[in-house]
Amino acid sequence: MNTSFDIWQTIRQEVQTAAAKEPLLASFLHLTVLQHENLARVLAFQLSSKLFSSTMDVRALYDVFLRVLENNPEITSSVEADIAACYERDPACEYYFLPLLYFKGFQAIQSHRINHALYLSGRKTLAYFLQNRASEVFGVDIHPAARFGHGIMFDHGTCIVIGETAVLGNDISLLHGVTLGGSGKKGGDRHPKIGDGVMIGANASVLGNIHIGKCAKIGAGSVVLHDVAPQTTVVGVPAKAVGLSKNIPANMMNQMIMVDNDENKQP
Amino acid sequence: MNTSFDIWQTIRQEVQTAAAKEPLLASFLHLTVLQHENLARVLAFQLSSKLFSSTMDVRALYDVFLRVLENNPEITSSVEADIAACYERDPACEYYFLPLLYFKGFQAIQSHRINHALYLSGRKTLAYFLQNRASEVFGVDIHPAARFGHGIMFDHGTCIVIGETAVLGNDISLLHGVTLGGSGKKGGDRHPKIGDGVMIGANASVLGNIHIGKCAKIGAGSVVLHDVAPQTTVVGVPAKAVGLSKNIPANMMNQMIMVDNDENKQP
Amino acid sequence: MNTSFDIWQTIRQEVQTAAAKEPLLASFLHLTVLQHENLARVLAFQLSSKLFSSTMDVRALYDVFLRVLENNPEITSSVEADIAACYERDPACEYYFLPLLYFKGFQAIQSHRINHALYLSGRKTLAYFLQNRASEVFGVDIHPAARFGHGIMFDHGTCIVIGETAVLGNDISLLHGVTLGGSGKKGGDRHPKIGDGVMIGANASVLGNIHIGKCAKIGAGSVVLHDVAPQTTVVGVPAKAVGLSKNIPANMMNQMIMVDNDENKQP
Amino acid sequence: MNTSFDIWQTIRQEVQTAAAKEPLLASFLHLTVLQHENLARVLAFQLSSKLFSSTMDVRALYDVFLRVLENNPEITSSVEADIAACYERDPACEYYFLPLLYFKGFQAIQSHRINHALYLSGRKTLAYFLQNRASEVFGVDIHPAARFGHGIMFDHGTCIVIGETAVLGNDISLLHGVTLGGSGKKGGDRHPKIGDGVMIGANASVLGNIHIGKCAKIGAGSVVLHDVAPQTTVVGVPAKAVGLSKNIPANMMNQMIMVDNDENKQP
Amino acid sequence: MNTSFDIWQTIRQEVQTAAAKEPLLASFLHLTVLQHENLARVLAFQLSSKLFSSTMDVRALYDVFLRVLENNPEITSSVEADIAACYERDPACEYYFLPLLYFKGFQAIQSHRINHALYLSGRKTLAYFLQNRASEVFGVDIHPAARFGHGIMFDHGTCIVIGETAVLGNDISLLHGVTLGGSGKKGGDRHPKIGDGVMIGANASVLGNIHIGKCAKIGAGSVVLHDVAPQTTVVGVPAKAVGLSKNIPANMMNQMIMVDNDENKQP
Amino acid sequence: MNTSFDIWQTIRQEVQTAAAKEPLLASFLHLTVLQHENLARVLAFQLSSKLFSSTMDVRALYDVFLRVLENNPEITSSVEADIAACYERDPACEYYFLPLLYFKGFQAIQSHRINHALYLSGRKTLAYFLQNRASEVFGVDIHPAARFGHGIMFDHGTCIVIGETAVLGNDISLLHGVTLGGSGKKGGDRHPKIGDGVMIGANASVLGNIHIGKCAKIGAGSVVLHDVAPQTTVVGVPAKAVGLSKNIPANMMNQMIMVDNDENKQP
Repeated sequence: MNTSFDIWQTIRQEVQTAAAKEPLLASFLHLTVLQHENLARVLAFQLSSKLFSSTMDVRALYDVFLRVLENNPEITSSVEADIAACYERDPACEYYFLPLLYFKGFQAIQSHRINHALYLSGRKTLAYFLQNRASEVFGVDIHPAARFGHGIMFDHGTCIVIGETAVLGNDISLLHGVTLGGSGKKGGDRHPKIGDGVMIGANASVLGNIHIGKCAKIGAGSVVLHDVAPQTTVVGVPAKAVGLSKNIPANMMNQMIMVDNDENKQP
Repeated sequence: MNTSFDIWQTIRQEVQTAAAKEPLLASFLHLTVLQHENLARVLAFQLSSKLFSSTMDVRALYDVFLRVLENNPEITSSVEADIAACYERDPACEYYFLPLLYFKGFQAIQSHRINHALYLSGRKTLAYFLQNRASEVFGVDIHPAARFGHGIMFDHGTCIVIGETAVLGNDISLLHGVTLGGSGKKGGDRHPKIGDGVMIGANASVLGNIHIGKCAKIGAGSVVLHDVAPQTTVVGVPAKAVGLSKNIPANMMNQMIMVDNDENKQP
Repeated sequence: MNTSFDIWQTIRQEVQTAAAKEPLLASFLHLTVLQHENLARVLAFQLSSKLFSSTMDVRALYDVFLRVLENNPEITSSVEADIAACYERDPACEYYFLPLLYFKGFQAIQSHRINHALYLSGRKTLAYFLQNRASEVFGVDIHPAARFGHGIMFDHGTCIVIGETAVLGNDISLLHGVTLGGSGKKGGDRHPKIGDGVMIGANASVLGNIHIGKCAKIGAGSVVLHDVAPQTTVVGVPAKAVGLSKNIPANMMNQMIMVDNDENKQP
Repeated sequence: MNTSFDIWQTIRQEVQTAAAKEPLLASFLHLTVLQHENLARVLAFQLSSKLFSSTMDVRALYDVFLRVLENNPEITSSVEADIAACYERDPACEYYFLPLLYFKGFQAIQSHRINHALYLSGRKTLAYFLQNRASEVFGVDIHPAARFGHGIMFDHGTCIVIGETAVLGNDISLLHGVTLGGSGKKGGDRHPKIGDGVMIGANASVLGNIHIGKCAKIGAGSVVLHDVAPQTTVVGVPAKAVGLSKNIPANMMNQMIMVDNDENKQP
Repeated sequence: MNTSFDIWQTIRQEVQTAAAKEPLLASFLHLTVLQHENLARVLAFQLSSKLFSSTMDVRALYDVFLRVLENNPEITSSVEADIAACYERDPACEYYFLPLLYFKGFQAIQSHRINHALYLSGRKTLAYFLQNRASEVFGVDIHPAARFGHGIMFDHGTCIVIGETAVLGNDISLLHGVTLGGSGKKGGDRHPKIGDGVMIGANASVLGNIHIGKCAKIGAGSVVLHDVAPQTTVVGVPAKAVGLSKNIPANMMNQMIMVDNDENKQP
Repeated sequence: MNTSFDIWQTIRQEVQTAAAKEPLLASFLHLTVLQHENLARVLAFQLSSKLFSSTMDVRALYDVFLRVLENNPEITSSVEADIAACYERDPACEYYFLPLLYFKGFQAIQSHRINHALYLSGRKTLAYFLQNRASEVFGVDIHPAARFGHGIMFDHGTCIVIGETAVLGNDISLLHGVTLGGSGKKGGDRHPKIGDGVMIGANASVLGNIHIGKCAKIGAGSVVLHDVAPQTTVVGVPAKAVGLSKNIPANMMNQMIMVDNDENKQP
């Protein structure tokens, strides 16, 4: 997975094969992928297909997404890294084109990347509009000010909530139902900062302006209210440290807290 | 925030400013807000935009919503109180018009208010239809018989479930993922009663015909199976009391159970 | 509830009554139910109404669903058993037609039954497409390879996630927010096996290739990482056994862990 | 056909019978007719169904049509007279509801009646918009300033063009393809004035500010550039008088110029 | 052009070539042609795409068209003969698939063939509905009772009107704007009978229960009120005989009355 | 009307005034005109709004229209000349924006200009597709190979038909119902050539490869089968010369053949 050229060509070939095998999808695959000349146009087309509504014209969204992608080439790079993350970490992801076309967690991340650029350029009302549409369509609610690194995977995606001052590093995996929430009715820096390599299990809540250290792991259903040290596994409501890990949890995707604990006992 | 005239005029002015600044949204904002003469028409228009489908004509919904709002002026008053609640409690809510146009938790509450009036007037099948549409579009599933006070905020909204015999008082805040659920396969009074001023954290479940006392606070991810006394904070699976609070948790929106505990130690 | 003829005729009569009483729904009810000659056509019509999109023609879906239902008559039998399960277990389900038209948990199960048949017949790309659409529309994400018995009820449905190698027996009830998840980045058999009669409470996560014994009960918000013995109730993060039950939890729908515990003390 | 009550009740009964006999149309007939409480609402609903577009919301049109009909009750009276005209003059019009639902000539006239009221009230830009939509959908292009009496029938309708200063009296029949056109690039009174009882045959053109006398008849394909005396039949390119008639051509609908000529020889 | 197999296979190959060359159309061509297994399904799909509306579900039309075509295989034979007629007579028809996908005159004829079968089976209200939709979409208004032979071509189609008791033989060509109209307000047999091989020029009107003999030719813009003898050319308003022809005018498509006259002088 | 800058700025100002005065149109006018930065984008947006369908994505058309307009800047120049022609010749055209938004004759011409460029670039199948859509939506059927000058006006537009080898010069006016048709079933150069300044009246047919000289005038309803000399007026079925004119008929728009004849007697 060295260059953007590779991913785009690989996706085109995968999609051509799929279109030839499945007549019912040929129309969709031509319209969404094969008629386009690069990954950015496919992304703008697919996201506008998802986010338009009876009161927001699909061409208007398509136009604005194309322009953001042209003016922010780093978004397309991050998109490629996120596709690779899905392919490598999710055993159900058999093809590179699947996240682009079918994974709503992936699509929610890319909508946010575009939306964040709009927000930074001063188009806040539009960014709030798109946050709402993504929340309705993907069930993923990300404030447009949240900052994201690359190599991020949202597995399944449904019911993820990420607040205004949250910061995500690189190579992070979030399962569905994860909250990176704030606390209190005042503004300011009030959401979690997530280190590189972290994995957060299904339905876990991380609340307040706390730091989750590099390669930490948060068990499913946990509620985290305090900083977590690097390489540390926490679990429970409220969460407590139960072990250490030497690997990169976001890559391993191991949800088995107990197994993990056995493997990495505290000295 | 004294009179309805104020909120409606404020919203119109905010929206006019937004339409002038953001050409992409001008069309949507004129269609949804600026062409209308009062808040009730905007609400009927916006909710019909969200809840119509390929098999339910948008004009038919618009008509029925307009009539319910004309015959039940108290709904519009509650709508105003709910807008004010968002503006005051949610630091990401910078404008009064944001809940009306963009917050699906808010829209789900208002859909329910209309739906509850339909249910009480004997139109049960229509009420079930609209419950389903709101569940699909907002990810919020509220039985049309549930009774709601005013000043209610659903932050983010996704995956909230509220059962048939649930009762919510006034000035209540629910985070996303909250369940006010029943128990057992028999009918009758089987869902929670939530007191004024209560805040319930993300993904918490409150199950059975139990009472949550005024200004109680339920921590994120908790599972509550018994009554909670007024002003009391509970947390855990199953939830246990961990502190008292003197403030109104729904207004403070403080998710930090430990901080709260420190501040409000039991004597 | 002996024969398919009965359910279909009962539903037709219920719907005719509803159409006569509620003019706003008459159009929808004729289009979706009354113009059709059997339950399979209604199901194909209703699911295609839900799952088509701006890039997938509704007739193409309708056609493929009709053919799957013609070639797999056992699906229609399971549909009838699932309708009966809703009617018997959910006190808010007053009519047999409600799940078919309005319950997204039910509709997600039936989409999966069709999708599983497509997957088994080799149409994997189409199956992934439909998994995605169901995930967007119903908030229920089921891998098309997952195996389901009959008499299954998803109450509310939002935010249910079920992985590729999960197996569900017969007569099972899942509340909303339930995860039957995998672990690790490698493929192979890695998801839970759920026995007959099991009930899993709201927002509970069951992770890994573990067995949940017949008639076990998992409390709301629990995280289950190990096998659960038959008839056993587990609760907590991580979950621990707290009692035994002699009844069929999926049928009783009793969410009250403590009451259950009292009734069924361990010897 | 004495009172408006009669026509509306007759139409409702005809439509109920049709809905019961034809399942495929039951949905359309309930939505368009049976859910409404009077003829004006049906008309507003049906015309908004025809004239909305991807860039003009159907509710916005429905609202404006309802208001025009409320403020101009004489339009509904004319609508009833036009329905009666179709029923009496067109042997293919077996039911009173057919023009309302299916005859585009009739629908074009009613769109114009509403549009004329909008134009008179100063909403010229909206009137031009609707003239364009009617021209696209019905193939009938009527300038919103043209003045119409009652009892007017456009048989088939396609390709009728009527200019700004045209005036139509009462009880007039126009076949498809008729032009009531102007001449020259200057404004002012420049279109035909059509007397009561006139019939104009298919594809005939009447050009300039000329008067067509009461009960005149213009043969198919004719081009009329001069005044026509009352009761006179004209034919040809350019048209010449060929006979007189003692009856009311608009009611008789006799297209046979020669037969007519024989019956009504000039003395 | 011997067998139906040939035309269908030829069309598939033409369409595959077109889809490969023109990416913008690949999606449309797969959806409309390539995913289908025979000509009847393509026709039902394409006509339902054209005739559905915001108040008539596209699947409902698709279903009813499929059933009519299954029960009336002679319609598909006529469709093939009409495709061949376009290909042979219209120099702008370079491919067999063009009429099926793009020629509204052709599509109007096939809509009528289906509609006539519905009318004969007693579904008059549905037939009137479809007559109206075809009139709006194609600008061609054909009463569902009119009887058509095979090998019929409507060139361009716009503004053709054909009445209730009209009868068209085989191998007939009508240019746009042609009227086969009735006369008078009484029912009964009142429309023209058109013999085999006849060609009727643009904007010509043929009115009343008259006979147009085999291989007659009617000049553009003519108005015909009396029988026309076989092989005879008529022209003018009203039309007079100006010559004889020995060929089949419908096949020759020669609009040049004068040239024709020279070639075929009366002895 | 000297420069393109003027027309575009004038149109923007007219549209801003209209949007401020007519709330119902504000949304449409922002979406279609005010959000765009130049005339070409407005044209691509408006024509894609008109020509997309349930089987042709609106973004795909918008994209292809934008590219054609970028690569063929002379089209935008012709568009401006055609707008000016409407404004100057049609007394009902009070504003420069009316043709762009509302006149289907104008829109049909511009669709053809784009379509002709596609045809010349080898995209014939796409061009046929768009010819069909324009024929359905505008009732104007123009073969994509026909060649057009600038300053062309189609008044009303309905039922205009123009064949493959037709050529239109500059400053030409066609009324509705005009046919520029071919003759015979063989290909080759077979349609009329229309000189500069010509006006053709309503429903006139000009057939065969004949030349209509500069500033000729053809009366309404005429059928022209032979060459017409410059400055000559013809009328009738078939048409004969009846006078001469010294002005430019396309600019004068005088339909009054007799008046014209009086003014311009042959010596």
